Amino acid sequence: MINIGIVGGTGYTGVELLRILAQHPEAELKIITSRQKAGVRVDDLFPSLRGQIALQFSDPAEADFSQCDVVFFATPHGIAMDQARALLELGVKIIDLSADFRIKDIAVWEKWYGMEHVAPDLVGEAVYGLPEVNRDKIKGARLIANPGCYPTAVQLGFIPLIEAGVVDTNHLIADTKSGVSGAGRKAVTPTLYAEASDNFKSYAVAGHRHQPEIKQGLSARTTQSIDLTFVPHLTPMIRGIHATLYARLAQEVDLQSLYEQRYLDEPFVDVLPAGSHPETRSVRGSNFCRIAVHRPHDGDTVVILSITDNLVKGAAGQAVQNMNIMYDLPETMGIQHIPLLP
Amino acid sequence: MINIGIVGGTGYTGVELLRILAQHPEAELKIITSRQKAGVRVDDLFPSLRGQIALQFSDPAEADFSQCDVVFFATPHGIAMDQARALLELGVKIIDLSADFRIKDIAVWEKWYGMEHVAPDLVGEAVYGLPEVNRDKIKGARLIANPGCYPTAVQLGFIPLIEAGVVDTNHLIADTKSGVSGAGRKAVTPTLYAEASDNFKSYAVAGHRHQPEIKQGLSARTTQSIDLTFVPHLTPMIRGIHATLYARLAQEVDLQSLYEQRYLDEPFVDVLPAGSHPETRSVRGSNFCRIAVHRPHDGDTVVILSITDNLVKGAAGQAVQNMNIMYDLPETMGIQHIPLLP
Amino acid sequence: MINIGIVGGTGYTGVELLRILAQHPEAELKIITSRQKAGVRVDDLFPSLRGQIALQFSDPAEADFSQCDVVFFATPHGIAMDQARALLELGVKIIDLSADFRIKDIAVWEKWYGMEHVAPDLVGEAVYGLPEVNRDKIKGARLIANPGCYPTAVQLGFIPLIEAGVVDTNHLIADTKSGVSGAGRKAVTPTLYAEASDNFKSYAVAGHRHQPEIKQGLSARTTQSIDLTFVPHLTPMIRGIHATLYARLAQEVDLQSLYEQRYLDEPFVDVLPAGSHPETRSVRGSNFCRIAVHRPHDGDTVVILSITDNLVKGAAGQAVQNMNIMYDLPETMGIQHIPLLP
Amino acid sequence: MINIGIVGGTGYTGVELLRILAQHPEAELKIITSRQKAGVRVDDLFPSLRGQIALQFSDPAEADFSQCDVVFFATPHGIAMDQARALLELGVKIIDLSADFRIKDIAVWEKWYGMEHVAPDLVGEAVYGLPEVNRDKIKGARLIANPGCYPTAVQLGFIPLIEAGVVDTNHLIADTKSGVSGAGRKAVTPTLYAEASDNFKSYAVAGHRHQPEIKQGLSARTTQSIDLTFVPHLTPMIRGIHATLYARLAQEVDLQSLYEQRYLDEPFVDVLPAGSHPETRSVRGSNFCRIAVHRPHDGDTVVILSITDNLVKGAAGQAVQNMNIMYDLPETMGIQHIPLLP
Repeated sequence: MINIGIVGGTGYTGVELLRILAQHPEAELKIITSRQKAGVRVDDLFPSLRGQIALQFSDPAEADFSQCDVVFFATPHGIAMDQARALLELGVKIIDLSADFRIKDIAVWEKWYGMEHVAPDLVGEAVYGLPEVNRDKIKGARLIANPGCYPTAVQLGFIPLIEAGVVDTNHLIADTKSGVSGAGRKAVTPTLYAEASDNFKSYAVAGHRHQPEIKQGLSARTTQSIDLTFVPHLTPMIRGIHATLYARLAQEVDLQSLYEQRYLDEPFVDVLPAGSHPETRSVRGSNFCRIAVHRPHDGDTVVILSITDNLVKGAAGQAVQNMNIMYDLPETMGIQHIPLLP
Repeated sequence: MINIGIVGGTGYTGVELLRILAQHPEAELKIITSRQKAGVRVDDLFPSLRGQIALQFSDPAEADFSQCDVVFFATPHGIAMDQARALLELGVKIIDLSADFRIKDIAVWEKWYGMEHVAPDLVGEAVYGLPEVNRDKIKGARLIANPGCYPTAVQLGFIPLIEAGVVDTNHLIADTKSGVSGAGRKAVTPTLYAEASDNFKSYAVAGHRHQPEIKQGLSARTTQSIDLTFVPHLTPMIRGIHATLYARLAQEVDLQSLYEQRYLDEPFVDVLPAGSHPETRSVRGSNFCRIAVHRPHDGDTVVILSITDNLVKGAAGQAVQNMNIMYDLPETMGIQHIPLLP
Repeated sequence: MINIGIVGGTGYTGVELLRILAQHPEAELKIITSRQKAGVRVDDLFPSLRGQIALQFSDPAEADFSQCDVVFFATPHGIAMDQARALLELGVKIIDLSADFRIKDIAVWEKWYGMEHVAPDLVGEAVYGLPEVNRDKIKGARLIANPGCYPTAVQLGFIPLIEAGVVDTNHLIADTKSGVSGAGRKAVTPTLYAEASDNFKSYAVAGHRHQPEIKQGLSARTTQSIDLTFVPHLTPMIRGIHATLYARLAQEVDLQSLYEQRYLDEPFVDVLPAGSHPETRSVRGSNFCRIAVHRPHDGDTVVILSITDNLVKGAAGQAVQNMNIMYDLPETMGIQHIPLLP
Repeated sequence: MINIGIVGGTGYTGVELLRILAQHPEAELKIITSRQKAGVRVDDLFPSLRGQIALQFSDPAEADFSQCDVVFFATPHGIAMDQARALLELGVKIIDLSADFRIKDIAVWEKWYGMEHVAPDLVGEAVYGLPEVNRDKIKGARLIANPGCYPTAVQLGFIPLIEAGVVDTNHLIADTKSGVSGAGRKAVTPTLYAEASDNFKSYAVAGHRHQPEIKQGLSARTTQSIDLTFVPHLTPMIRGIHATLYARLAQEVDLQSLYEQRYLDEPFVDVLPAGSHPETRSVRGSNFCRIAVHRPHDGDTVVILSITDNLVKGAAGQAVQNMNIMYDLPETMGIQHIPLLP
């Protein structure tokens, strides 16, 4: 059994981690912390977990993680970088669902996240936890930077094109749509039901933190320079990301075959038959990324549709996938939930 | 392994049965029929099942159920009563998710369902599949009448009061609210998104088919006469039933204790702490019924709140629970999904 | 023209007042205050009002209401009672959309609103602004206590029965369902989209502030004692209240005719044909209350369905209706919006 | 007063026409037809119109439009082209909300709409009713082809760039998102609540009927060739279109100023301040198109955000705007509804 700690378990990625880990055959949840909810039973806050988890939230100041093999950070950025070194020194592995270790260029990170990075050396060590490109490095890692929700869907969508070198990499466009849970469980006006329901809008068109993360990830797959226009939108649903990706073809290629080959052995990337239109609900509650490839009017613009559940493959599910890889477990263990439809 | 057939698998109870049975350790799905979708792959119609189910829908006219141990009917009423006898004669057991065998009084059934009943003798034999009251009979049954969605939530809510004889049984009120999936997957105008979203309404206030089913079920728990005002409402959500039940106390009783005792050993009925307000999402995708008991202002009106997922405990999950009981499997096998929240 | 001020215009009742008053032929909006948004243009906060309102929010500390004929309070409770006397002394009339002047019994008010009342004498003077019962008093009033959203729908639903003396008034039941805007625009976790969407729950079953308001209102229509079980629910829609009301008949009566007669001359109460099921969307954005009357199975339990838009007839629309009455304008002036459907 | 007829008033564009025309000061609704609902009162089908419209639906076979000045077609394609000639010969003007007269190239129309066009000469005469480009021609027209919902939002978004000749016109991208009412009121499975809610998907990526309409409209604004990748998506809301438009800059230009100048005198096109993110709810129920202009990272990709209510500016509102122009009424008459927010 793997002994597990969770830092910051009161948000949506936290409760999703709990849902998954509570039934993972090799996971034993030892401790979960929350400043605000210390002393509260986990299943009082999340009645969906009644009968599943007997723990209560611990005060982070008093938490003893030395009993843990691995600690998940489901915190806002800025927490994990502060606590990582001490945990690593205890021999505890870390899977950070926040953004602290995702961006290798510290200056870029500091610009987008608005604070000084306190552990730049650990950024260097951290492995970017996208199994579809970094499986081998994840296996031996102590510190995983779990990818962002948009970056997961967008990178998995673009990677075959980038690796094959068949598109203009300087003018990629990612028009992305996210369910509201992507904004987290913090109480703010714009994500109130009466604001976000029956409504659609873009945000952060001038610049979004996930753009440099995507750019870095795609740049690692090619020697060409990468530039990306990234426009995120908020859509009135709870879960789900739909990335609509546009690229200009630079040479002829059998797109469907390219994608099918690239993801042939990937347990969680599903390339749909030609002509498909993936729906976000077809991955609701599951760790799948489903991708469809289009070339409208046989023109030179490729349209890639890539969908995930932002809380699973875009966060907690991918984190557990990384854990499975790190501990030599079957990669799909405990994350084989069938999507909930309808 | 139990060999399983499904008749009519293209509706919401059908796809939910598929979701559950695809990962049930003792279930092997052999055949699934659909008149309209014969020849279509199941996962073409429901991409959420890609990689889970390799079958295609069979033409009912050509379906051979002799290979099956048990057949589930996920059909509109009128089908199961027509086909049940032939299956039973083949030695196949039946779990009917439709209404054909729920009402013992044939005249009442015919009045509410608007057709002649063609197998009244089988109605006599059929066991009403509410495990919390009929577990022993279910064990030995060949033919299960799986309860309706509202009747499950309403009966589980009222039963402790009725069995204890502490309320006026002639003036029960059930104000129930259902998600739109309860209306099925048939294309009709009132359940279109643009009709049912951002909207709330009652329906069938003059009389609804589930009222006699509830009345029959509650009458079986007492020697007193039962009468019930049943008002169903359609609420803009996909899944979930919320039954708000009102009864007038006839004598003093410790309500919380009454409910906790009644459901102490029930794996799927969860009596919440006093003062709770159960949310339908706390059972989304799961087989739980959660119940809270209130007595506002210490008056003589009891308010019971009972919630289920209409497609799970209200349909497919309870059907599999019944199958587990019939085949002496652990009652919770394959239906222990943790609710999806958020 | 009536010169108008609004105190606290950043919530949902505030923006709804603005929507209505911006096109009211006799209203001229002079000033609108907000502590948090002082200096911000109204149409920056609410782009729906671009081109309609040129004002910016004023600091309440610096606001001069002496130019106003009437001031609307769209504030949390506790503000209006504090400021009312000074305004009245300036000769300014007040329409208070908050709860400060609704409850005549000061002790009851203080119990439910958890603070000391600082203007009990004004409570005595205040007229409860439900035009369907108090039209004449409203005409001459300086201070209007605009009814709560639930109390409007529930009282309009029960009044004909209570006035006619045909039901058991000690066991009334109001099972009410509200859209999420009823909870206001304040950022709190339970009304986040990802919490309230695809979910249904009750709240405050042990006791809700609107229960004593309803009780007081109904008591004023009869010499009999009134008792009421009031159970509110939150439903995933933006606007709308659906009150499902239950009462036990004490004598025979032609219910449909009773309701039609009672509301014959009421411009905003619409009694639907017998057998109807009103949908909340049929009043979306309008000042109507639509009511349907049922007596299921010809039993002794009457079921009344009463719907409103909580922000219009349940708040801002009714406030303007009261203003029209106070200023001898046609009662329907400026509030004749046709509901937005779909 | 203008005497008005409506053909096919049971769909969403029909009921929206009714909502608008019922309060239009110069419109008198004389007749409304429906094959399926002949004899039914309009306000029985749409209770939101109770007290507003006393008509019942007429059988189209018996309808006498000679009393009408103008007839609106709110029908599926194929009807208006069949009936237009007879009406025009009666001296009745036509505003066709369907697609029958939108595409000038008959072969293109026939390809996309799958039927033979029976009135190609009238296509030549028809004026494309986008007031922002065709106001003068609309004034004298007998036959208006009212634009499609997507084409309205997309064209208004692209026009300033195209007219100014500052972008690569051969690689335009329109990533569009529509509320579900855009799919009409016809009962089909994909637009059921339980299918479309909490879900996001694209459709018709291989090709959509509105692509040639947009291409034709933009081509008319330039001498350059136009090509467009058009990807529509279905988003879980009732009303609203959000078009996210991408174009590659070919020369430097002050984008904000370009847009503000172009739409300076347009009553229904609202160019938002630089940096804005328009929300669809900010036009809900209104005839506005709001546009924001972005140039992320000062790169060469322009991002235009253009929103409308698909049933108003995208259909019924624009139709009445055209009527106002045709009859020399103030262009904004009867379509000045303030958006309903929240």
